[in-house]
Amino acid sequence: MDIHRVVGALYCTQRIEGLYHCELRVLKDAKGKLAVATDPVGAREGEWVFTVSGSAGRLAMGDNKILTDLAIGGIIDHWEA
Amino acid sequence: MDIHRVVGALYCTQRIEGLYHCELRVLKDAKGKLAVATDPVGAREGEWVFTVSGSAGRLAMGDNKILTDLAIGGIIDHWEA
Amino acid sequence: MDIHRVVGALYCTQRIEGLYHCELRVLKDAKGKLAVATDPVGAREGEWVFTVSGSAGRLAMGDNKILTDLAIGGIIDHWEA
Amino acid sequence: MDIHRVVGALYCTQRIEGLYHCELRVLKDAKGKLAVATDPVGAREGEWVFTVSGSAGRLAMGDNKILTDLAIGGIIDHWEA
Amino acid sequence: MDIHRVVGALYCTQRIEGLYHCELRVLKDAKGKLAVATDPVGAREGEWVFTVSGSAGRLAMGDNKILTDLAIGGIIDHWEA
Repeated sequence: MDIHRVVGALYCTQRIEGLYHCELRVLKDAKGKLAVATDPVGAREGEWVFTVSGSAGRLAMGDNKILTDLAIGGIIDHWEA
Repeated sequence: MDIHRVVGALYCTQRIEGLYHCELRVLKDAKGKLAVATDPVGAREGEWVFTVSGSAGRLAMGDNKILTDLAIGGIIDHWEA
Repeated sequence: MDIHRVVGALYCTQRIEGLYHCELRVLKDAKGKLAVATDPVGAREGEWVFTVSGSAGRLAMGDNKILTDLAIGGIIDHWEA
Repeated sequence: MDIHRVVGALYCTQRIEGLYHCELRVLKDAKGKLAVATDPVGAREGEWVFTVSGSAGRLAMGDNKILTDLAIGGIIDHWEA
Repeated sequence: MDIHRVVGALYCTQRIEGLYHCELRVLKDAKGKLAVATDPVGAREGEWVFTVSGSAGRLAMGDNKILTDLAIGGIIDHWEA
C-alpha cells in the first residue's frame, strides 16, 4: 500500500459505467506523481491517506463490480517511528 | 488509476485475436512515457483521460475476454484542487 | 518480493473494514521510498523484512478477505552472498 | 500495454515446464530497459511491438496454462499522432 | 518477465507458512535493485536468470499455494541479438 495526499476531485462526464456513481479523487505521492482513486472512507482535500491497489482495491469498495484499480484504504491520523 | 493524454492511434495488422476489433490508443503521461490502451469511452487525440489497469481494465471493456491490461476509464472535464 | 526496513506504525481511525484489526507497518526501501504493509509475522521497528505483493500478499495474511496489497513475508536473519 | 522493440532471442536449457515450447524474446523499451516476453504473433528482431502484461498476457498465448507475465500483443505497422 | 542475476541466499527464521520449505534467492537487476524470489529451477550464485511475477510466478512453483510473487523462470544460457 502507498502513502498519498488528496489534492482534489476529478470530474468526467464520459466515463465507464463500471465506476457507477463513485467520486474520483486526485492524489499526489511524495515525489509529486499524480494518481486517481476511488474513496470508500470519505477523505478530504489535504489529508494524507494510504491506498490499496489491484483487486484488493476493487474489493475495498465493498462491491467488486466497481472497476477501480486504486482505492483509499484509510485516512492517516498519525504515524509513529 | 493514472492520468494520461491521448496522443494518437496505433495500427497493427498482426495482433492477438483476444483484442477483437478494439482500436488502440497511444497515451503519454506527465513524464512523457508512452503507453497503449483500449478505449471504451471514445476519447480523441489531445484529450486528457484517466486509465484503469490490470483485470479492472479488462472488465472496463464490458467483456472480460478482451485481452487488454490498460483501458481508458473516462475523459477528464476538469479537476478541482 | 522486495526488501524493506520497518520504520514505524501507522494509525488510522477511519479505514476500510476489509483490513479488520490488522496493524499497519510503515516500511522504507533502499531508495527511501515509503510503503504500508500488513504484518503476519510480527516484525519490529528497525528490522529488515521481505514483502509479498498482490494477491499473494492477501493470502499471506492467512485469510484472503483481508484487503491488503502488501504483506511482510519474513524477518531477514542474514543474507549470504 | 507498453511499447517495446524486439532485440533478440533468449535461450535457456533449464526453465520451468509451464512455458512449454514457447520461444522467448528479449525486448527493450524507450529507456533501454530489457524485458523478456513470449510471442504469439511471430515478431522479428528489430520490429516494434506492444506488449500485454499480467494475466491478460497469459491469456494472450491462447492457453492460460502458459506461465508468462508478458506477451507480445501485436507488431506495430505505424502510429498516427 | 525480467532479467536478474542471482547474488545470494536469504535466511529468515520467522516467515509466513505459505512459503513452505522454499529457499529464497536474492537477485539484482541491471540497475542494482535487489529483489527476492523463489527458485523452481535450481539457479546458482552468479547466474543470470529471467523471473516471472504475479500469479504466474506462483503457478511456476508447481503449486499455487506457495505464496511468492516472483519466481525464477529459467537460467539464461545465452542470448542472441
